[in-house]
Amino acid sequence: MTASGERHDDQARLDRAGRYLPMVAVREDQRGGPPIDRRLIVAANRGPVSFHRDPSGGLTVSRGLGGLVSVLNELFRQHPGTWVAAAMSEEEDRLAGEGRAVDIDLDGVPYAVRYVSLDRDSYDRYYNVVANPLLWFVQHYLWDFARHPDITAAEHAAWDSYLAVDRAFAETIADEIGGDGGDALVMLHDYHLYAVAPEVRSRAPGAFLHHFVHIPWPQSDSWRVLPRRMRTAIFEGLLGNDIVAFHTEHYAQSFLDGCSDVLGLPVDYRRGVVEAGGREVWVRSYPVSVQPENLRQAMSADEVALRERSLLEERREYLVLRVDRLDPSKNIARGFRAFDVFLSRHPEFARRVTFLALLQPSRQDVPEYVACREDVLRVAEEVNARHGRGDWWPIDVRVQDDFATTLAAYRHYDALLVNAIFDGMNLVAKEGCAVNQRDGVLILSENTGAYGELGAFALGVNPFDLEEQAEAIFRALTMSAEERRTRAMGLSDVVQHNSVERWIETQLADVAARMRSQP
Amino acid sequence: MTASGERHDDQARLDRAGRYLPMVAVREDQRGGPPIDRRLIVAANRGPVSFHRDPSGGLTVSRGLGGLVSVLNELFRQHPGTWVAAAMSEEEDRLAGEGRAVDIDLDGVPYAVRYVSLDRDSYDRYYNVVANPLLWFVQHYLWDFARHPDITAAEHAAWDSYLAVDRAFAETIADEIGGDGGDALVMLHDYHLYAVAPEVRSRAPGAFLHHFVHIPWPQSDSWRVLPRRMRTAIFEGLLGNDIVAFHTEHYAQSFLDGCSDVLGLPVDYRRGVVEAGGREVWVRSYPVSVQPENLRQAMSADEVALRERSLLEERREYLVLRVDRLDPSKNIARGFRAFDVFLSRHPEFARRVTFLALLQPSRQDVPEYVACREDVLRVAEEVNARHGRGDWWPIDVRVQDDFATTLAAYRHYDALLVNAIFDGMNLVAKEGCAVNQRDGVLILSENTGAYGELGAFALGVNPFDLEEQAEAIFRALTMSAEERRTRAMGLSDVVQHNSVERWIETQLADVAARMRSQP
Repeated sequence: MTASGERHDDQARLDRAGRYLPMVAVREDQRGGPPIDRRLIVAANRGPVSFHRDPSGGLTVSRGLGGLVSVLNELFRQHPGTWVAAAMSEEEDRLAGEGRAVDIDLDGVPYAVRYVSLDRDSYDRYYNVVANPLLWFVQHYLWDFARHPDITAAEHAAWDSYLAVDRAFAETIADEIGGDGGDALVMLHDYHLYAVAPEVRSRAPGAFLHHFVHIPWPQSDSWRVLPRRMRTAIFEGLLGNDIVAFHTEHYAQSFLDGCSDVLGLPVDYRRGVVEAGGREVWVRSYPVSVQPENLRQAMSADEVALRERSLLEERREYLVLRVDRLDPSKNIARGFRAFDVFLSRHPEFARRVTFLALLQPSRQDVPEYVACREDVLRVAEEVNARHGRGDWWPIDVRVQDDFATTLAAYRHYDALLVNAIFDGMNLVAKEGCAVNQRDGVLILSENTGAYGELGAFALGVNPFDLEEQAEAIFRALTMSAEERRTRAMGLSDVVQHNSVERWIETQLADVAARMRSQP
Repeated sequence: MTASGERHDDQARLDRAGRYLPMVAVREDQRGGPPIDRRLIVAANRGPVSFHRDPSGGLTVSRGLGGLVSVLNELFRQHPGTWVAAAMSEEEDRLAGEGRAVDIDLDGVPYAVRYVSLDRDSYDRYYNVVANPLLWFVQHYLWDFARHPDITAAEHAAWDSYLAVDRAFAETIADEIGGDGGDALVMLHDYHLYAVAPEVRSRAPGAFLHHFVHIPWPQSDSWRVLPRRMRTAIFEGLLGNDIVAFHTEHYAQSFLDGCSDVLGLPVDYRRGVVEAGGREVWVRSYPVSVQPENLRQAMSADEVALRERSLLEERREYLVLRVDRLDPSKNIARGFRAFDVFLSRHPEFARRVTFLALLQPSRQDVPEYVACREDVLRVAEEVNARHGRGDWWPIDVRVQDDFATTLAAYRHYDALLVNAIFDGMNLVAKEGCAVNQRDGVLILSENTGAYGELGAFALGVNPFDLEEQAEAIFRALTMSAEERRTRAMGLSDVVQHNSVERWIETQLADVAARMRSQP
């Protein structure tokens, strides 16, 4: 399973100017041949598909949730390989036990999936204690330090489980590599697998190791929440890679600062390089994106047309939209309170505007998420009670997971509110801009990763400032058609230009460059 | 009022190696003469004394609270001048109205006090909305971002009041200078006066401006809580000075990073210099300290002896002590929970140890402080209910403000717990080490400013890690006499060496150097 020739026809894209990717070195000398002649192994907590047995004994294979599947599917389209993931079902446990990968085909892309067998309790502690909420909250600045977290014996034990799970991942990856790794490119994903790289390296020293972190990288003081052994292991784990990748330069910078502050390592800021254990680790940023073509294709489904019809029947003069997982980082309740301020300041909008909130349920076995959901629903009710009249409910909250409705709403919003407290990238902003057909205005938190790319054409807001958000809603709904159009075109251009293909190419170009830089 | 000769006999101290102050340039060429031939004007929210009329019409002058008075009194002892402060009482308002300074004598040091007249509502918003909790919480990382703060119309209005109060301070300072400022050295203090310097500079362009920030300087993401106009004004306000000073290099570094991140200014990290408005601003660190001599003197008071006797009568085999303002940043409840863990792990200490918590009431008109106090008392009760037996109450909480008891307890603790979440310096740690007579062990949060100086001789703890704090209490109470002694001597040496005199000298030496560096 070596790098195939399919990528040849994509090489021209390497010429594009790195407008939004100033840290990315796209090398001229790399064009004209397959840049990476290695077996690709991707590892992430979740797999691209789920295997289940139904009660009658039949095998069901269903597409995995989450944005990672679609962007990585694009990687596998160009570069066949194996995806390593935690076994979640009995059937996946059985497959893990067979000790070999299963071939699958996803949207016409053939590749293999290999499962890691994990004991349920360890997995639970790794996932529901360490990854969420501990790391997620540290990395999104969500801890209420005066009260939470407490690092107790339970968290220490959970950390040991996290290390054990990561070790199991590394063992499976090494087994899949099956040699010293000299022919393997291992691409690790996200905050569940921080400790994997050194364990792979010790088993397969020739492997090229790459880790992409999809959530914010906080500044070093935030890591002081974690006991020294934990924060040290996280930084040392990531430095087991050859390249560590983030969505934005700011996160990359925070990681470099952290290598200096937490580990006391020498950092070359100009080159984006950390010297660790006698090796050079490159720290880079590549803003992930969406696939406008795929979205437009999905848009043509009958189901979307159905949802669209009912949306158009129900809608008032103006539609303000938000689409979010029910996560504290998304700042949903403050968005409602800002809408409350807007309605109080501008009573002329009564009955003429609806705030549609499409909220996906999330992590309801974590207490912080239960509290968040309750809070969000309570605030929406309060605002509706205060401003609603007759048959007009200012806020229409739908806790559901229905992509057809989301697509229909994307097409028709007048303003899209993305006011996240902190957010690694935020793909809702990009999806909306890719498919909206009313020159809808994007109101975007300056603390999202997407702000660096889209901020110039959006109405930027501070996520804590209710006045500014209320004013932005007013501006969005009263803006001249010309200004709306100019902004919408700018947004759409950026999303079109910074494509998923580009995200993959720039990463692979750096992998090739990094390989060449070392004998 | 020029620099007096008293400093001559202190010049020898300038020779000392800057072990804990690597950023401080102590210049050889400065010895042998009064380094600063300028009128000193200090400004801080509170004055060194309070003026009140008693009901019979008599005038009362009482010493101000807070640590700033004693360290700055040392500055005035060396360098006579005027202290500018907000008028808090009717009598001080009257004095402010007279438009001139009042001469006072404090502990044998003569200087002048000048009051700034402020309208009560503006002062309330400046102090009880912006300074506390908004800035205090931002700078100590205490906001629970998912819920607080909201920046509403009230916070925006309060910010305007903050700017108005700072402008009034600047007007009074300029009036006190009474010219273009060429003969004035203005030293501003703390987080109430961030916007003063540019306003003084525009009125008295020749004044030398210096600002000392006594609380932590957080990393730049934390400033994103504040709307752009606020965070910009804070950084630009501080950059109106010639020198900006912090307790630690880490805070200075965070300020330099913030100048780059928040304002996009060029920063020279090697020299610790920011280029702002065509001027160079020096960013430096000087860890403030205590005065062991004064503490030892205070120790000899009859009242202390009285408190000591009752303390010795009551005490069990081991005394664990904490002394804190009742502030969320001090992490008092987690300290009790750690003690809970310690008692559960080590039942052999039952009836043999008391955790004495001397807690000063604080800011009870701010809701977060009321909640903190309730939380602390509730947790203490829970721990006492769980472990207490017979006449033994494991935790003895005293909410009071009695320095004699504090001194007596300092003398006799076996372990002093300082587990602050984040703390600018923490002088309790230094006071305790200066006067303890039992080779008491210091358990010190790695997130305090003091950790940089004292950490090597303390048991360092992560303030969130209950296990580590419990283990540190156990280690402290079971440590060999020899190790206790070595550590206690190390701590005492550091406190003796890094004196308040040294804190002042190094600052003044840099002021002189900065003056010479510019025509």
